Amino acid sequence: MSELIRVGIAGYGNLGRGVEDAVPRNPDMVLAGVYTRRDPEQVKPERENTEVYSWSDLDRHRDRVDVLVLCGGSKEDLPEQGPALAGKFNTVDSYDTHARIPEYFEAVDQAARSGGKVGLISTGWDPGVFSINRLYGEAILPGGDTHTFWGRGVSQGHSDAVRRVDGVAHAVQYTLPAESAIDGVRSGSQLDLTTREKHTRECFVVLEGEADPEAVRQAIVTMPHYFDQYDTTVHFISEDEMARDHASMPHGGFVMRSGATGSGNRQLIEYGLKLDDNPGFTASVLLAYARAVHRLARAGESGARTVFDVAPGLLSPQSAEELRARLL
Amino acid sequence: MSELIRVGIAGYGNLGRGVEDAVPRNPDMVLAGVYTRRDPEQVKPERENTEVYSWSDLDRHRDRVDVLVLCGGSKEDLPEQGPALAGKFNTVDSYDTHARIPEYFEAVDQAARSGGKVGLISTGWDPGVFSINRLYGEAILPGGDTHTFWGRGVSQGHSDAVRRVDGVAHAVQYTLPAESAIDGVRSGSQLDLTTREKHTRECFVVLEGEADPEAVRQAIVTMPHYFDQYDTTVHFISEDEMARDHASMPHGGFVMRSGATGSGNRQLIEYGLKLDDNPGFTASVLLAYARAVHRLARAGESGARTVFDVAPGLLSPQSAEELRARLL
Repeated sequence: MSELIRVGIAGYGNLGRGVEDAVPRNPDMVLAGVYTRRDPEQVKPERENTEVYSWSDLDRHRDRVDVLVLCGGSKEDLPEQGPALAGKFNTVDSYDTHARIPEYFEAVDQAARSGGKVGLISTGWDPGVFSINRLYGEAILPGGDTHTFWGRGVSQGHSDAVRRVDGVAHAVQYTLPAESAIDGVRSGSQLDLTTREKHTRECFVVLEGEADPEAVRQAIVTMPHYFDQYDTTVHFISEDEMARDHASMPHGGFVMRSGATGSGNRQLIEYGLKLDDNPGFTASVLLAYARAVHRLARAGESGARTVFDVAPGLLSPQSAEELRARLL
Repeated sequence: MSELIRVGIAGYGNLGRGVEDAVPRNPDMVLAGVYTRRDPEQVKPERENTEVYSWSDLDRHRDRVDVLVLCGGSKEDLPEQGPALAGKFNTVDSYDTHARIPEYFEAVDQAARSGGKVGLISTGWDPGVFSINRLYGEAILPGGDTHTFWGRGVSQGHSDAVRRVDGVAHAVQYTLPAESAIDGVRSGSQLDLTTREKHTRECFVVLEGEADPEAVRQAIVTMPHYFDQYDTTVHFISEDEMARDHASMPHGGFVMRSGATGSGNRQLIEYGLKLDDNPGFTASVLLAYARAVHRLARAGESGARTVFDVAPGLLSPQSAEELRARLL
C-alpha cells in the first residue's frame, strides 16, 4: 500500500458528515480535517479525533490535503467555492443543478488548469452513477429509450433550495415516481413519458414566525430548474411533526434503457438504487472519485473532469491486475 | 461527423450475425466485411450487401479494417485467434473464461504492444457491463457484499462448451437463478451464498448417432470452470424438440451490491438485464467498445485493455461537451 490519500472536507452539513463517516471505511484514505465557515470551536464533529479548522485555514493547508471534497450546496455555495478552490486543491463535488453543469464545468476547468489541479464535478448518484448508466445505455442500445425515475425519497438539493426561501424555518422535499409509469417502461408499453408525468414533488415546510404561507408556496412552486417543471404540493407542518416524521433521508430510483436488436428482440437494462440515507451514499461516491482524482493528479493531469472521463478501474484501491483476476 | 469507423467481423456464428445487425444502428460505423474460416461462397450473410471474405484475406485487408470484432468461442477459438490477430488489428472480443482472463490478457497485450494496436478483451455483459457494476459497487460501498445472479437464460459460452463434447450433435444450456436467493440478498437477510447455492445449470442435448448418453453426461458435468462447480442436469432430447422449444436465446441477471453507511443505514445497488437475445446484446456491447478502441488507437495507445480501463465517455459517438450538457 502506498501513502494514504489525505482527504479534506470543505463544508460540514449532512454531506460533510457522510464523508467523515466514509473515510475510515476506505483503507487507503485518512481524514486531513473538516473546514467550516462557522467558528470551529462551535462545531462538534461526529468522530472525536476529527480536526475542525476554519475556512480561512484552507490556504495555509494546501500541502496537507491531497483531495478536498466540496460539501456545500449547489444553489449558492458551489458556484462560488468550486472555481475558487479548484485552483488550489484537487477537488471533487456533487454540483447537481443539471441545467448549469456546462457553465460550472468551464469555471472549474479554467481554475483547475491554471492551478495545475484536477477538479471532478457533479458526482454522487444523479448526477453521478445514474449519469453513467444513461451514457452506457445509450452507447450500447442506440435508438432505444432512456427513462430515469427518482424516489420515493428526500432530495438534498431540492430540500436545500426550499430552505433558502424567505419565511421557511425547515423543509423536506420528497420526489415520488409514478409506479404505473415504471411498469409501463418495464413492459415496453409506455415509452413517451415526460418527467412531469413520471414524478411529483412533495414539500413539508415549517414556517418562520409570521411568514405568509401563500407567498412561501408561490416562491417554491415557481422556482426555476427545481420546481417549475413539476406538479408540486406544499404542506405546512409543525416543528414537532417535522422531527417525528421526516428525520431520515431515504432515496432511490431507476435508470432504464430499452432498445431492440435483430428483428425486434427487446433488450432492457435497469439500474436501481435503494438508499436508506442519501447523503451517506453520495458521500461514498464522492470518496471513490476522490481516489480517482488523486491518481489523475499524480499522473500529471489537470483541469475539470466528470464521471464520463474516469475509467472505472481508477475508482478501486486495487491494481488493474487484481481487478482483472477478481472482478472481470 | 468524422470518418466512419470500419468494423470487421472475424467469425460468423450467432455473435457475428449480431454484430452485422448492430453496425448500421451506429451512425458512425460501417461494416468492412465478414471473415470466415468456411468457404465464403457457402456463407449467406443476413444482409445482402455484406461482403464475406475468407479468413486468409485478413492479412491483406489490414488497411481496410479499423477495428476487428472477434466473434469466435472462448474455449477453442479466441485463445489462439486473439493473440494472433491483436498484433495486426485493433480488436475487441468477448473472451469469457473468467478463470483464464489474466493469461489471455497477457497474450493479447504482448501481441498488441508489438504491433502498435489496441486489443480490448472480455467485454459483453459478463464479463463486461456486469464486471463494471461489480467494480463500481465495491468502490462505492467498501465492506459490503456483491452478488451476481444469472438467468434464466441460455449461456452462449456454456452451450458452446457442451457442443464440443464428443457425441453431442446439438446442445443448449440454461442458467437458472434461485429466486429465494435473490429475495434474500434484496432484503439483506441472506448474504453468504455460494455460486452453487444461487444457481443451477440445465442442459438440453441432442446426441450424435450411437453416442453413449452416460459418457456425454459425465463429460459435461465434470468440465472444469464451466460445470464442475454447479449442480448440472442433462436432458437428452430429439432434434425436433430442440428446434421447437429451444430456438431463442434469452438471458439476463443481476449484479447486486449492498453495504452500510453511517450507523447502519443500508444502501443497495442493483443492476439488471432482461435480454430477449443474448448474442444480439453482447454484439451491441462489443460495438460500443469497438468505438472506444478506435479512439484509443487514434490517440496513440497500444496494448491490451479491459472495460475497467475505458472511461464511459469513450463509448459514445457524442463529444464530451454534448454528453455533459445532455446526460450528466
